[in-house]
Formats: sequence, structure tokens, C-alpha cells
Amino acid sequence: MPLPPDRADGGPATSASAAADPLPSWRDTGPKAAILEFVSAVTDPGSPDLVPERDRVAVFDNDGTLATEMPMYTQFAFALDRAAQLGHPTDPTELRAGGIGAVVELVKLTHGSITTDEFDRVCREWMATARHPLLGRPWSAMVYQPMLELLRLLGRHEFSCWIFSGGGTDFMRTWATDVYGLAPHRLIGSIGSAEFRIGDAGPELVKGTDIQVVDDKAQKPVSIHRHVGQRPVLAAGNTDGDLAMLQWTAASPYRTLQLAVHHTDADREYAYDRDAVLGAGVDELHAAVAERHWTLVDMADDWATIFPPPA
Amino acid sequence: MPLPPDRADGGPATSASAAADPLPSWRDTGPKAAILEFVSAVTDPGSPDLVPERDRVAVFDNDGTLATEMPMYTQFAFALDRAAQLGHPTDPTELRAGGIGAVVELVKLTHGSITTDEFDRVCREWMATARHPLLGRPWSAMVYQPMLELLRLLGRHEFSCWIFSGGGTDFMRTWATDVYGLAPHRLIGSIGSAEFRIGDAGPELVKGTDIQVVDDKAQKPVSIHRHVGQRPVLAAGNTDGDLAMLQWTAASPYRTLQLAVHHTDADREYAYDRDAVLGAGVDELHAAVAERHWTLVDMADDWATIFPPPA
Repeated sequence: MPLPPDRADGGPATSASAAADPLPSWRDTGPKAAILEFVSAVTDPGSPDLVPERDRVAVFDNDGTLATEMPMYTQFAFALDRAAQLGHPTDPTELRAGGIGAVVELVKLTHGSITTDEFDRVCREWMATARHPLLGRPWSAMVYQPMLELLRLLGRHEFSCWIFSGGGTDFMRTWATDVYGLAPHRLIGSIGSAEFRIGDAGPELVKGTDIQVVDDKAQKPVSIHRHVGQRPVLAAGNTDGDLAMLQWTAASPYRTLQLAVHHTDADREYAYDRDAVLGAGVDELHAAVAERHWTLVDMADDWATIFPPPA
Repeated sequence: MPLPPDRADGGPATSASAAADPLPSWRDTGPKAAILEFVSAVTDPGSPDLVPERDRVAVFDNDGTLATEMPMYTQFAFALDRAAQLGHPTDPTELRAGGIGAVVELVKLTHGSITTDEFDRVCREWMATARHPLLGRPWSAMVYQPMLELLRLLGRHEFSCWIFSGGGTDFMRTWATDVYGLAPHRLIGSIGSAEFRIGDAGPELVKGTDIQVVDDKAQKPVSIHRHVGQRPVLAAGNTDGDLAMLQWTAASPYRTLQLAVHHTDADREYAYDRDAVLGAGVDELHAAVAERHWTLVDMADDWATIFPPPA
């Protein structure tokens, strides 16, 4: 499933079947047609809506948009396991009851006071052994096959695809780089403090316990400005936390596309309108979708396949 | 002089002469030989020091390393002109006497309370008309021809080149993108606050007056971690403010190269060991160069040409 980063950053089509139908896991419903028409319109050299290659920026939320966020964010599953390992077991129910304050304490305990190299190792070890309850696979395999196909399609058309997630940047880069085929700098999330120091083993970066950037809501356009420096022409999200990112994209002078993924499939994934831990909802996002004729992706109706085939 | 961003991000060699001598503005002294040997050693497929393409990350300071920082940083020249325009004339001597406090006030006045789109327009207008006192050219043309050649050489060898500057990110991106042939996301500097809001004309980002990140000294490795997420294998700087960046690079598991540009040419540029406004020195950097056998670039001895030919 992993793509080499250089390929997803804009390599050629890899097979005749990809050329025939670049989105085989999407049903032939509205969203697939909207995506294919948009990509053609902004990349066909003869199109009046042509966007120059350098301006083909696409931004994605991660949890719930590219990957399963139920029964909890992948990073929370990691944090709970690590807290237990560190001698501070926490129950998921406790975490939900404690709200944002409990989450911050858990993040400080499990993500701080550790070098970036050591944190990278800890995350990779966890990902290699932990399993998601739904399919019994690694959490990194609980990503959406239709969205992987979309990332590849955009890469083949010289888009640069970026992720702006509420999750932690360091955690996400340890697994998502390979899974999505995106270079580490394309994966941006919330950011904690870090300190450069010359340790016993030489220069190192030590992660602190302050959360400096929470990459959600109105922060997402700010983070896009800082990390990309260009306005996107395509944005995809699934909760009200992504609305500002979609609004910012829609205000581009170029033609744009906004996708809102709706979790409607209780049989194959989950059906919900509010995430399990932090309670992010979808009302504002769906109101904007209706008002502005953005593209709603109904997972039950629009996706023929949800997850990649087993490894 | 400008390169298209896609080319500098790793295009093919563009001419036979570039293949014959990719660094024609470098004299045949030690630094040129060190650069050519290093690039060959880390990119030749048969080399024991081969660095995979995805890990070929090179980082550069801007002011004094890629561009003239005398008689003051380009951005200070802009800020003084803009302050005068806004009815708050400030003398360069006053600015020097006032130290960092005066600089912060000047930045707040001239860089805050303005949308990012409007700030972009103001910067471009200034750059189109302001002239550097040394050669009477636009400040954006006061960049070093040997370093432009180095950026191109690295780009042709699939390096991703990034700038980590103490200067402001937004200001730098308005001119340096074209001059260096690097996409906006490759230009990182100090960062001020910004706020997303829905204004009368639609969504906008408004620059605030808080300086959130001063991208200097120990912050440079932290910024590299945030914005690149990989350790560099090549770093170039010119003052003690760049030392941590060079130390971090030197600690890579790959073979690395460190360049320290020394301003020794009072005839063709400037000769100094301390910058004019903030007083950044070179003592710690030069001590590390001597101790660790890094590469000192003596502008008078090692560069045949300093500036690009007139436009």
C-alpha cells in the first residue's frame, strides 16, 4: 500500500488500469464525477480553468477524512497504551469524561520530556504491534482506499498534497509518510515545544510539554499559510474543525473543490456525526456544504470499498 | 536569474557549460573542491556515502549567506521606508541604538495589522522601486551568484533546498521565491501571529503584532524539525546565529557538509565580523569551523564573482 514519497509527489501513472479508472474504489456517483471533472478542468492545458502546476496545492484533514477516527483517534490509542506503560493507566471513559483538560494532561505525560529520535522509535514500536478493534489490523492500515486513490490521482497531476491535522505532527510523521506516500514536510498537525541541546550523545531535540499550536478550526488556514505559503485549490475534511480550511480554499482566485466526508456506514466503518473523544461535530460544515454546493461524500453510498485489501 | 520553482526543486541540467563547470563563479580553491567532492560522494549511485534522494535536504541561512546583509538587512530597509510612509520616520542610527526593543517596535508597526494579501502587495511594490546603495540595484538582486550556482547544482542532484532565516517568512517569500527558484514552503523565517477571519471581502488572514517564532540560534534546528521533519546533510550559514543549524546537520547519520561564509571583501562587497543592526558575531561559528574542519568560504579568495550580472 505505501507509495514511495517521490511517486506520490507527482510521478507518472503506474498501470493501464489506473489510467482507465483512477478511482476504482469510488462508486459512479456524484462525488467521483465531481472530482474527475475538477481535476481535468484545472490540469488540462487547454482548459479555461487551468491552474499552473506550482499552484496545485491540495490540503486534507487526517482523522476521519483519510483515516478512521473511531472508536478514538489513533494517537489517543497510542497515548493510552503509553500512559499505561509509564505506570499511569487511564481509561478511555475517564478520558472522555475529563474533556480537553484530561487530553492535555495525557499528551504531556506521553509525548513530552523525550528526544525526537526516541519518540520516533516509541511510536514505530507501538504501531508495529497495536491493533485496531474493527479489523484487527495495525491502526496505520485503517485508512480509506478511495482517499489513497485520490492522493495518487492528484500526485500524478502534479498536485502537492498536504495534511493539516489536529493530531500531533511528530506522531503522524512516524506512520503516515509511508502510508500516504507524502514527504514528512507535507504532514502538519498540532505542535509541541521542543528544545535543541547538546546532550551526551551529541546534538538532540527534546520534546517539551507545552502544546504550542493546536491545528484545528481557524488555525488550519494560518498553518497552511505558514507551512505552504500558497492558497489551496482543493480541500477535504469531515468536521466543523475543517470548515475554516475549506472556506480559505474556496476563496482562492482559482477554481476550487471542497470535499466533506460523511460517516454513514455503520456496517463497514462507523456512522456518527460527532467524534468520540473531543466531540467535534459536523453541523456547521454540513450547513456550508448545502449553502455553497460543496461536495458531500457519503461513505455508504459513494465508496465501493472502504479499506485497502489486507497486507 | 530567477529559476522556475519546479526546476530548482530538481530538474535536469540545462546546458553543456553547466555540466562542464557547475560552479563557474567559484575560484578553484578548497571550498569549490569540497562542494564538488561532497555532492559527488552523496549522489553517485556507486558511492559508499550515497544519500537516498528523499534524504537529500540542504538548509541555508539567508542574510549574509545567500544575500547581502549590509549596510542593513533587506527587511530593515523595507521596514524603515514603510515606517516613514506610515508617518513614523525612524533613523537607522536610532534603530541601532535602540537594539532589539526598537527592532520589535518597528516590526510591529510595519508588519502587523494588515492582511497577508495586502502585505504581499506592499512588499512587492517596495522591492520594485527601492535600491541598494552599493550597486544601485533592487535589494533582491543583491544575492550571491556563487550561491545561486550552488542551489542549482544541488537541485539538479535531487536535493531539496530550504532557507531558515531570522528574517520574516512573509517578507522573504514575496521576493526570494523567484530569485532562488524555491517554492514558498521552502522559505522559512521568523513568524508573527496571524488570525483567520471572514472579512467584508471574504475569508482573510490578518497579520498580528506578536512575534511568535524568532528563527535564530537554537530555534533553527527546531524549525527545521517542524517544517522539514528530516535532518539536513548540508548546511550553510555566516554567523553564530547559524551555529546550531550546522551542529544539528553535522549530527546526521549520513555524511554531511557545513559551509561558513566569511565576509572578507571590502572592495566587492563588505568586510565585517559583526552585523550592523543586531550585532550577530562569528566567533563561536569560526571556532567550530576550526575545531570540526568545516568549510570556511572566504568571499575575497574563493569567489570569482560576487553578484549576478545586471538584469
